[in-house]
Amino acid sequence: MKITKIVVANRGEIALRVMRSAREMGIKTVAVFSEADRNALHVRYADESVCIGPAASSESYLRGEKIIDVCKKTGAQAIHPGYGFLSENAKFAQMVADAGLIFVGPSPKSIEVMGSKLGAKAAVSHYDIPMVPGTPDAISDIPAAKKRAAEIGYPVLIKASAGGGGKGMRIVENEEEFEEQMQRAISEAISAFGDGSVFIEKYILSPKHIEIQVLGDQHGNVVHLFERECSVQRRHQKVVEEAPSAVLTPAIREAMGLAATNVARACNYYGAGTVEFIVDKDLNFYFLEMNTRLQVEHPVTEQISGVDLVKEQIKIAQGEPLSFKQEDLKILGHAVEVRVYAEDPKNNFLPDIGRLQTYIRPQGVGVRVDDGFEQGMEIPIYYDPMIAKLTTFGKDRTEAIARMIRAIDEYQITGIETTLGFCRFVMEHPAFVDGSFGTDFVNKYFTPEVLQAPADAEELEVAAIFAGMLAETKKPKTAAAQTVVAEKRGSAWKQNRTR
Amino acid sequence: MKITKIVVANRGEIALRVMRSAREMGIKTVAVFSEADRNALHVRYADESVCIGPAASSESYLRGEKIIDVCKKTGAQAIHPGYGFLSENAKFAQMVADAGLIFVGPSPKSIEVMGSKLGAKAAVSHYDIPMVPGTPDAISDIPAAKKRAAEIGYPVLIKASAGGGGKGMRIVENEEEFEEQMQRAISEAISAFGDGSVFIEKYILSPKHIEIQVLGDQHGNVVHLFERECSVQRRHQKVVEEAPSAVLTPAIREAMGLAATNVARACNYYGAGTVEFIVDKDLNFYFLEMNTRLQVEHPVTEQISGVDLVKEQIKIAQGEPLSFKQEDLKILGHAVEVRVYAEDPKNNFLPDIGRLQTYIRPQGVGVRVDDGFEQGMEIPIYYDPMIAKLTTFGKDRTEAIARMIRAIDEYQITGIETTLGFCRFVMEHPAFVDGSFGTDFVNKYFTPEVLQAPADAEELEVAAIFAGMLAETKKPKTAAAQTVVAEKRGSAWKQNRTR
Repeated sequence: MKITKIVVANRGEIALRVMRSAREMGIKTVAVFSEADRNALHVRYADESVCIGPAASSESYLRGEKIIDVCKKTGAQAIHPGYGFLSENAKFAQMVADAGLIFVGPSPKSIEVMGSKLGAKAAVSHYDIPMVPGTPDAISDIPAAKKRAAEIGYPVLIKASAGGGGKGMRIVENEEEFEEQMQRAISEAISAFGDGSVFIEKYILSPKHIEIQVLGDQHGNVVHLFERECSVQRRHQKVVEEAPSAVLTPAIREAMGLAATNVARACNYYGAGTVEFIVDKDLNFYFLEMNTRLQVEHPVTEQISGVDLVKEQIKIAQGEPLSFKQEDLKILGHAVEVRVYAEDPKNNFLPDIGRLQTYIRPQGVGVRVDDGFEQGMEIPIYYDPMIAKLTTFGKDRTEAIARMIRAIDEYQITGIETTLGFCRFVMEHPAFVDGSFGTDFVNKYFTPEVLQAPADAEELEVAAIFAGMLAETKKPKTAAAQTVVAEKRGSAWKQNRTR
Repeated sequence: MKITKIVVANRGEIALRVMRSAREMGIKTVAVFSEADRNALHVRYADESVCIGPAASSESYLRGEKIIDVCKKTGAQAIHPGYGFLSENAKFAQMVADAGLIFVGPSPKSIEVMGSKLGAKAAVSHYDIPMVPGTPDAISDIPAAKKRAAEIGYPVLIKASAGGGGKGMRIVENEEEFEEQMQRAISEAISAFGDGSVFIEKYILSPKHIEIQVLGDQHGNVVHLFERECSVQRRHQKVVEEAPSAVLTPAIREAMGLAATNVARACNYYGAGTVEFIVDKDLNFYFLEMNTRLQVEHPVTEQISGVDLVKEQIKIAQGEPLSFKQEDLKILGHAVEVRVYAEDPKNNFLPDIGRLQTYIRPQGVGVRVDDGFEQGMEIPIYYDPMIAKLTTFGKDRTEAIARMIRAIDEYQITGIETTLGFCRFVMEHPAFVDGSFGTDFVNKYFTPEVLQAPADAEELEVAAIFAGMLAETKKPKTAAAQTVVAEKRGSAWKQNRTR
């Protein structure tokens, strides 16, 4: 069935993102919005819009029954949930189906299975999907545990089965240390939880977070669209993503792609989904979980594959078979995305809500901005403080990174602190440039001080001249400073801004 | 030699375009500007900037010696001329070389050869480059002319050798008409110019303008980056371009690519250049001329090839060999560009200068904007009235066109008339959609009235409601109108704008 009108059950950049593709497909769009979002861009962009309640998400964006009502009132046949909110809510997906409407996403059953660790593990057990090696059950017998540890391979992690907060958790580097560390872990576990049983699993040092984008249709076809590396995280949340990963070999990519499509097959998946893995230094990969929705960082995959994932989601929801096979898909270049959050990296990435006094986006070759704000708007306190996703695409990783630095430098935001400066630091960091970074990047390399590096000599000199700190007779030494002074102008885009 | 600082001898979008790539390469940029451009974006974007004279181009952007002086003053080693202004001035290229500086472009000799029709014809004569068939010299003998016409193939064009303004010009459809038409042409030519000699050449009905992008290095390597079709023109100037063409076959593309690289070889070309052809309904192609510079419409080639042409220009100017071979280049998708001019299509495309009261660019997947303006700026009367180039990229032509329509609808410009509405008309026109259009598109299909089409019923109804033209008791008929009215909102982005 052809969808002619769609309700987008979300807000911000992802609502706009979905509406753009719907519009390109000739599908009319309906925005839903909370009272706090009355002037939001997604409301202005939609063909129609309906207020569904107060600012609190629990009173608006999470109210499935209200959103289904909007469909009925407006004559829309389908709901796109975006990410977050109701996107991975199996009950909502079922409610939508029961109302005779199309949920643009997988079946309620797939959402349910992959929403539970145990359910997912059971579902994929018939496929050869690598999991982090470990004891399936709690163990307390030291010689038996030592034997398992040797099989798993060092380093291993011993953790209390009743554990939490690091109590009873020990990293064991080699066999010699095992007995002593296990005894300590047991003692700690007994004193902390009154229970001395522990699990043993492989300890992965500085792992990478790498995920595979999959697309499945309702006719049993599943393909993958390569990987995204999302290891740069703060507070366990992604902030820089790229595709492809700097480190995967074609053989590992193919193996991970096969594992991911098998995970999708294991739950009869259709729609767009993401299979997450952790990857160790030797490129062993282990299944973590499957996200049964469009991912925030999907633009990097769109850039390198040329596939519009939202359009594919809608076509799949309409019952169309995939229009391409695995062998039709090629990696066309390299893409990097940084998330521009209203957060202060110098203050532990705490949200910094306020008004976008200046908001001017970068432009030009290889630059894509997905956002939901414009100059003068307030970042509301009720929702995720992401302002924008800035994506650059280049023929290779070096070009994509150089372009990202250029684009970050062009981005003009004043009035609030953002993660842009932090992301620029990442782009230039040797561990990012050489691809060796893991999920511990921020803990390992980032301190607020790195964002307060002094300007270079030339900049300082120009600044000093403008501040009148040099005597009239003292001429600027550098040619650049002379020109700038001669022109009575600053030298960088931001310094020159008059608005 | 590595360039570390470059002067961009241009203004507007192309100056910004060049600076962006320079910045990505770590090269410092110097802007030159006229007094009218003191607050222009290219001036703000550059690391340094120097005023070179009054607004008139002849007093500033065309003053080569001043620009060379700027290099000396700022320590820049190279000049990028952009397009227009000094970009195809062989004397200027020579002056730059004589000053010990690098001209980012071909040799003065290549510019000179390709700058003259006769020179170009002589240069390519050793290669098998197809030219529009015709008599090389003037002819007045009717039986001899008829014989030539038969060889050329009908229809043919007879034109007075002393001609101009259409006098003495005759289109001959078939052999039977030839004698009579030639006699008339001769009579007309004698009475108009006192000279009855005429040329005969093939008449190409509704030709297409298709050009091939070439790149050559200083070591004799030349490749092509496929074609651009630029047939949609107004006043013989391009306004919509795309890559690849909707109609070329792979075999014709290869043949045109070979011809174009041979034209480049014929003049020992290095740098980026464009070989223009006219193409008839049967896909016969004929060499027109070579443009020895970066073309306005180069972004569509960048999008489909993944190659940053400005970076390649700079690397070639530094003496680097090309980093790819012909077989490494692939067409990655489809790109369409529309030129947003400050012109009124309803008034014969006359320039409409003024202030950009609203100026908000489209964003999101597959959209690229190259411009030199921002909201509140004036379009200066002294220069080309192009505001922006809007380029969309998609996996195929259908997607690129749908995305362009979406992007045009997102573009918000008030305060002046632009070509956006005209370009939207082109995107939806059957002759554009099916690829059958030629350079006569505008004359054949466009009238100002097409831009004044009435809104659809729903839009009209909503407008009427807001205008208070419906009685209170009269309910809107369409569901959409009901919702919109219920929400006291308009339905389209532009209607909702509050700033």
